[in-house]
Amino acid sequence: MTTVNIGIIGLGTVGGGTARVILNRHDDFMKHYGYDLQIKRACALEPERAAELGIDAGAFTTDWHDVVSDPDVDIVVELIGGDHPATEIFEAAFAAGKHVVTANKALLGRHVEKLAHKAAAAGVQIKCEAAAGGGIPIVNALEHTLVGNEILTIAGILNGTTNYILTRVENEGLGFDEVLADAQRLGYAEANPTADVDGFDAAAKVAILASIGFRTRVTTDDVHTEGIRSIAPVDFEMAHAMGCTIKLLGIARNTPDGVDVRVQPTMIPQSHMLASVSNAMNAVYVVGDAVGETMFYGAGAGSFPTASAVVGDICVLAEHIAGGTVAPESEPFERSLPIRSIEDLTTRYYLRLSVEDKLGSLAEAVQVFAKHGVSVARINQNEVGSDGANTLVFVTHEASERSVQDAVNELRGLGSIRAVAAVIRIEDCGAWTDGVMDN
Amino acid sequence: MTTVNIGIIGLGTVGGGTARVILNRHDDFMKHYGYDLQIKRACALEPERAAELGIDAGAFTTDWHDVVSDPDVDIVVELIGGDHPATEIFEAAFAAGKHVVTANKALLGRHVEKLAHKAAAAGVQIKCEAAAGGGIPIVNALEHTLVGNEILTIAGILNGTTNYILTRVENEGLGFDEVLADAQRLGYAEANPTADVDGFDAAAKVAILASIGFRTRVTTDDVHTEGIRSIAPVDFEMAHAMGCTIKLLGIARNTPDGVDVRVQPTMIPQSHMLASVSNAMNAVYVVGDAVGETMFYGAGAGSFPTASAVVGDICVLAEHIAGGTVAPESEPFERSLPIRSIEDLTTRYYLRLSVEDKLGSLAEAVQVFAKHGVSVARINQNEVGSDGANTLVFVTHEASERSVQDAVNELRGLGSIRAVAAVIRIEDCGAWTDGVMDN
Repeated sequence: MTTVNIGIIGLGTVGGGTARVILNRHDDFMKHYGYDLQIKRACALEPERAAELGIDAGAFTTDWHDVVSDPDVDIVVELIGGDHPATEIFEAAFAAGKHVVTANKALLGRHVEKLAHKAAAAGVQIKCEAAAGGGIPIVNALEHTLVGNEILTIAGILNGTTNYILTRVENEGLGFDEVLADAQRLGYAEANPTADVDGFDAAAKVAILASIGFRTRVTTDDVHTEGIRSIAPVDFEMAHAMGCTIKLLGIARNTPDGVDVRVQPTMIPQSHMLASVSNAMNAVYVVGDAVGETMFYGAGAGSFPTASAVVGDICVLAEHIAGGTVAPESEPFERSLPIRSIEDLTTRYYLRLSVEDKLGSLAEAVQVFAKHGVSVARINQNEVGSDGANTLVFVTHEASERSVQDAVNELRGLGSIRAVAAVIRIEDCGAWTDGVMDN
Repeated sequence: MTTVNIGIIGLGTVGGGTARVILNRHDDFMKHYGYDLQIKRACALEPERAAELGIDAGAFTTDWHDVVSDPDVDIVVELIGGDHPATEIFEAAFAAGKHVVTANKALLGRHVEKLAHKAAAAGVQIKCEAAAGGGIPIVNALEHTLVGNEILTIAGILNGTTNYILTRVENEGLGFDEVLADAQRLGYAEANPTADVDGFDAAAKVAILASIGFRTRVTTDDVHTEGIRSIAPVDFEMAHAMGCTIKLLGIARNTPDGVDVRVQPTMIPQSHMLASVSNAMNAVYVVGDAVGETMFYGAGAGSFPTASAVVGDICVLAEHIAGGTVAPESEPFERSLPIRSIEDLTTRYYLRLSVEDKLGSLAEAVQVFAKHGVSVARINQNEVGSDGANTLVFVTHEASERSVQDAVNELRGLGSIRAVAAVIRIEDCGAWTDGVMDN
């Protein structure tokens, strides 16, 4: 029986869960797959973590170099996150000919291509199922099972904190700040919530998914990113009136004009599968030209769900290591599709204005929209929401982001308009399946 | 560059789609993965199929033996379905040391374990992503990505025809026969609809998924199977009144008492993710002890969606063949969990009775339920549905299948009761997540 040795760096929420799952299932893995999976080294700052998790004290170290330099370690499992020393760990592991399993979305979001190249050059693999969608088996599906497809669209609810907040704003009619404070109290949101609520976490994940799905270079910097701070109960009321709901989506579309990739609060029909995904759950909707519409649903975070993805990656490598059949990382990023500017986006828009004088502002706003060629389909000046007396809502026909932003900038300069309080794209979900082959 | 040669047997809906996808994507595969994937042989009854699909005439044969005996063929792709000659094709392929990719749910539903053993003995692999859930990447997820989990529950909408029919009965209030006839006219149902509407297709698929997910022997014969012929609009009205809908589910639960596996029209809460899956779409809900709840959604049939799954299998094998790293089939069925008798099922039941005299029948029925220890939670004698004047509906508290069936048999013997028109289990979906680890 082959022993496959792993070295885990980081024994926090995800690392601890990973260690527990591996120790729990050791005998099963041995029986089912014929390899003896051992935690040969484990690195964390507090030695008591090893004991808590049932990891052999002799395996424990506080220095990650001990893990990477151990000649017996086959797979380095990097679960500390962040840029440093994660980057150095990857490089040292590659130099030592070791595969890397990681959940580091921030690092991969920026450098997935560069790291994949380095792994390929070193003849090893990087596996990152846990880096996008947590426990949801989406990375492997894009890399392997859906490989017969040109992937056309990826649209994901990729951040549990914001989905939880939006669900409560929608269902309970509470304001963003109130729900955020409650979410922080309950542990659903961090003390510094910006990575979640401003969309950065989702941006890293959609960059990873687009890179793998479209086999091209997409980094976090390519992703036009907006958060959910401006979304209020009144926006849900208006959305419902149009048969829609609002989700923070990471959208990546592989269009003839390039990759359209963005994170935005988005209005989608209530009948769309993504609309059913509530609370802290995540989902990734994927359209392939052969398979058509698919969706993958599950927990995007949490100790054991994320560990499930990490252990899946470890086991695939272990199976191949045990069988003597492990292949180096393939280089999937040889395409270099252009990234479309957000300004070229064309869709319908929902705009909520906070005004002093409804009638006067309405006339002025209509003029501004007309000047920029933005055709208004619907105006709502009914008194809805807590600030109803001072709220005007516009829904446009299809318009370009550029024109709408020009209009918004001009509206912001008008004395009669207190604020352009929310700008929400109404996504044309029908276009997501453009290019699917007819059966 | 390595050439990987496949031989396709069957060029019908799925085989034709598979050939088209492979021919379309040949250059992409070469560029992305570094192998030259060739359709070396293709077998069908009509030679003109090869020309239609753009397959080289020299590759065409009407004799499957030519495919399996061709020494250059690495992978045999069996897409004819049925028992014979599929069984002989599998055996000949194994004897010749060739991998098999298949969508043959009927054959695998009965013999997945035996065939997997034979493949393992021959040092080759069987891959069957398309055999359960069509285009949905669920088999690979159970075999690989979710391997860190003990799979606890699999509950799938595994048949598009029945989901289409039930969706229309629900939304349009039409009777089963009327919708079936329309579905046949539109090509959603076959002239002989029994494999679909009586649940046999779903039974084969849930047997395959349970076998792979639970790593044990589950065959189609183990699956208690019921179809949807008895479901009427009134059942949906009653379900809605309880916050539920009705889906034909293939359910497999890995319980401490053995595997509970069945195909039944089932009442589930409208808020459950499976309730959102409508028309001909399929979905597989999977609970793992680490990952918790997941769901995989997509097209369960159709030429290109099924081809997507077949080509995914071919490409995974091709990648390993090209890299010289292909491992033989592992033998995942060494467990032999007992199959729980349907009689041991305990749940709540919905029963619809067609009667002559409501008041008299009600009293008699209540006595029969009491005699068998079935506690009635709710009685509806309102005049709903087209046969409302003669309809009685009972909802029970939790009861055993055995007691309910005994009561049903006795009710059927009573002169005052024309028919026990529908018996529908109200599934305790909360129990589906029993055994998930706390984060």
